[in-house]
Amino acid sequence: MEYKLKAIAQELNGELIGDGEVTIHSIASLSSAESGQITYVTEKNISKLTDCRASAIVVPEKLTDAHLPGIRVKNPRLAFVHVMNLFHQATRANGLISSAMVDCSLQAGESTQIDEGTVVKENVSIGEGTLISSNCFIGENVTIGDHCFIHPHVTILRDTWIGSNVIIHSGAVIGSDGFGYEWDGQQHVKIPHAGNVVIHDDVEIGANTTIDRGTIDPTIIERGTKIDNLVQIAHNVHIGKHCIIAGTTAIAGSASIGDHVVLAGGSAVVGHLTIGAHSTILGKSNITKDLPAHSIISGYYARPHHEQLRKQAAIERLPHTLKKFSTRIDSLEKSIKKLTKEE
Amino acid sequence: MEYKLKAIAQELNGELIGDGEVTIHSIASLSSAESGQITYVTEKNISKLTDCRASAIVVPEKLTDAHLPGIRVKNPRLAFVHVMNLFHQATRANGLISSAMVDCSLQAGESTQIDEGTVVKENVSIGEGTLISSNCFIGENVTIGDHCFIHPHVTILRDTWIGSNVIIHSGAVIGSDGFGYEWDGQQHVKIPHAGNVVIHDDVEIGANTTIDRGTIDPTIIERGTKIDNLVQIAHNVHIGKHCIIAGTTAIAGSASIGDHVVLAGGSAVVGHLTIGAHSTILGKSNITKDLPAHSIISGYYARPHHEQLRKQAAIERLPHTLKKFSTRIDSLEKSIKKLTKEE
Amino acid sequence: MEYKLKAIAQELNGELIGDGEVTIHSIASLSSAESGQITYVTEKNISKLTDCRASAIVVPEKLTDAHLPGIRVKNPRLAFVHVMNLFHQATRANGLISSAMVDCSLQAGESTQIDEGTVVKENVSIGEGTLISSNCFIGENVTIGDHCFIHPHVTILRDTWIGSNVIIHSGAVIGSDGFGYEWDGQQHVKIPHAGNVVIHDDVEIGANTTIDRGTIDPTIIERGTKIDNLVQIAHNVHIGKHCIIAGTTAIAGSASIGDHVVLAGGSAVVGHLTIGAHSTILGKSNITKDLPAHSIISGYYARPHHEQLRKQAAIERLPHTLKKFSTRIDSLEKSIKKLTKEE
Repeated sequence: MEYKLKAIAQELNGELIGDGEVTIHSIASLSSAESGQITYVTEKNISKLTDCRASAIVVPEKLTDAHLPGIRVKNPRLAFVHVMNLFHQATRANGLISSAMVDCSLQAGESTQIDEGTVVKENVSIGEGTLISSNCFIGENVTIGDHCFIHPHVTILRDTWIGSNVIIHSGAVIGSDGFGYEWDGQQHVKIPHAGNVVIHDDVEIGANTTIDRGTIDPTIIERGTKIDNLVQIAHNVHIGKHCIIAGTTAIAGSASIGDHVVLAGGSAVVGHLTIGAHSTILGKSNITKDLPAHSIISGYYARPHHEQLRKQAAIERLPHTLKKFSTRIDSLEKSIKKLTKEE
Repeated sequence: MEYKLKAIAQELNGELIGDGEVTIHSIASLSSAESGQITYVTEKNISKLTDCRASAIVVPEKLTDAHLPGIRVKNPRLAFVHVMNLFHQATRANGLISSAMVDCSLQAGESTQIDEGTVVKENVSIGEGTLISSNCFIGENVTIGDHCFIHPHVTILRDTWIGSNVIIHSGAVIGSDGFGYEWDGQQHVKIPHAGNVVIHDDVEIGANTTIDRGTIDPTIIERGTKIDNLVQIAHNVHIGKHCIIAGTTAIAGSASIGDHVVLAGGSAVVGHLTIGAHSTILGKSNITKDLPAHSIISGYYARPHHEQLRKQAAIERLPHTLKKFSTRIDSLEKSIKKLTKEE
Repeated sequence: MEYKLKAIAQELNGELIGDGEVTIHSIASLSSAESGQITYVTEKNISKLTDCRASAIVVPEKLTDAHLPGIRVKNPRLAFVHVMNLFHQATRANGLISSAMVDCSLQAGESTQIDEGTVVKENVSIGEGTLISSNCFIGENVTIGDHCFIHPHVTILRDTWIGSNVIIHSGAVIGSDGFGYEWDGQQHVKIPHAGNVVIHDDVEIGANTTIDRGTIDPTIIERGTKIDNLVQIAHNVHIGKHCIIAGTTAIAGSASIGDHVVLAGGSAVVGHLTIGAHSTILGKSNITKDLPAHSIISGYYARPHHEQLRKQAAIERLPHTLKKFSTRIDSLEKSIKKLTKEE
């Protein structure tokens, strides 16, 4: 695939800078780009532009004097996503069912693709344009919508309901039993898990992430939420729309996360809590209390981030501060002693 | 499946309240239950009972005036587990071996079930009523007892020994090599792992959990212990009976955990430590020292929980406390100066 | 397999102690060894030697009076690795391709082995002596070098490049998409991931570990680095040579780790940071700033370990220290009051 720069500019609705006839054959990062390639620069790293050897560059509106042909846009990162999609066309479902291990009850679209080694159990429905890659497992009564991409080695257990445009990465497990027991005096008795998992449109789920089914009611991930690798989502969790949940985060049972919440990497949410919409939880925070909307929280004992910074600053100076206090009190005590004696 | 309420009451050995002829067709949670369904309430949330639209309810003994037909029992949560099992019969092995990738040396029971896509290597023994779901891997010389449920995509590597009534969830890896190397001056030399993994009766292991084989001696999980998702158990760990190990916990090599220990989510245990029986480790604690039996421990630098609370309270007030001290010392110094001058 | 002790001593270039004619049939740990077995002892646990029932023992040079036949060597742990390898010969590739799901475009060595249930897509190249175990997925354009061991259920996605002598444990996912989105005002737009993963010679990757592909440039693991279970390595991370990365560690996008770095269990590195060579990061540390070479770092808010110890000591005593200060200041204030009144 090759494009003239002017064609790319048109595609982006951007302002062409310099020679629009330059031919571009691939994308590259700012530091590795060579002749024939296009890259991008954000406001933050404009200074790195001087050494750029690309043939063309996507630049922010503020940049007025690029030494290269380019395209001026509002958000270069977002525009470059579109450029990447021009050169790297997404994998499309081919309408072939290559696996011999698909139950005859399957309801699939004309263009549904199921690859080698995948097992599909009874009463499954899979929509148009959806690609189930190799060695997956789709349990009974599972519904998957249109244009989903289920990567190799994904496990989707019985009764799971998945909307459209959902991406699930390799090794993810959807619908495992929740971790619930009741002690009967002699042993932990397993609580059966009869709920399912419901995943709405446009959700993406990372590699080796686990999402447990609900005990009675479902575990729910709302539309547009993106979940990274190795995340644990326990039974009956409810996650709102357009959340960002970064790698190795863990959300305990029945927690409820509002819309547009960001949980940075390694954070943890205790069971049955509610996190208000538009909250931001910084990396490795442990949330142990309900949070109102728009909270910004951090810390091992999570608190509002600005308080946390003040406490942490005090701790950083603590040995020094305590020593200074001690010296000053010592000296005061001596003075008092002296004054008392003198009397 | 449908039951009269009086039949369920009999099944639970509970005291029937109100109309025993009510027909129940399914279970539901307290908030979502509708006509024809049964749910339960614990002492803690009795106040939520007023809006309940279920046809019947399992209640604690203390509750004397339910407005619904119901069943009075000692532990409603435990009783409701039995109700759930009435309506959701557990998956049972069907005695079919559907996978073409099973070695002829397999010793299996009459009722053993092995599903499509599962690979079984040489000299494997699998007991009666055990169900190995799809796309699993069972390595050579593996023994699995009776009535186990091995979910799809489980990897059980060579020489693993598994008792009866064991449940292993999807993506779990049992018997991977431990993480051990010896530096020879030029590179990390891999220490071979000749030990195996031994998992006793009634153990449950969560999705994508990893349990490494021992270096020479085995890694051991004793009877009745329950392990959640994404847990890491390193080589030569020994876990006692009836422990609860919640999600994303990590236990380093050769650690020894006593019976009835609870490790809450995200906790970590350093290698070669001993944790005494009946200890409770709160969420995200990092255990770096041996613990006596019945310890209750928390914190990033884990300590007895009551000490931790005191320290954390001091830290929460720290900026304020230090400022107050500073003001008081300033004032004292001024007074002393004045007094000294006056003399 | 059986060896005379003198043959083992020769193999290790060690000094024979006592009867070299003793026959050894297997290895064992110090505490479990019985007659006919060989074990080892390090300087640290020489005291445990007295009860040893082994027929022979590998001992450090300092030990002059073993009561058992043995072999004296510089590093008993390292020497015992060689003894273990004598008794437990590594699995070797058998040159058979047992899977029916291998694309005809495969370029494989004479001795390459591919087991049942493994899927190999278009344009894959696999070297001599490499064993791909059961139920793996090898995506298109993947290259794997010689003498690698890919355990069951490994996912290696398109374009991944793997050198020689690489070991990948079960459930690992290599080449999943990085976690990158750009908000367009209405939704998170997925950033395509066109980079790949490059894994150099002698690397080992643990069970259920995930390594994301680069956005444009590759994610790179240099030679000799060892990675444990359940580790998350994000897009465009660069890890140097001979690093040790222990279980449940997470490294965020574009971080760069120097050669010979040790990241102990559960540590985390924020995106875009640089960690200098030969640094040691203690368990559960969160690295949020660039680190120079040879750093030794610990803590939730990671700092140099010796500072951390001082701060932590201050915190441990904090309630006591603050109370003592308070008492002393109270008393000073009283004295001052008295003195001032007296005047």
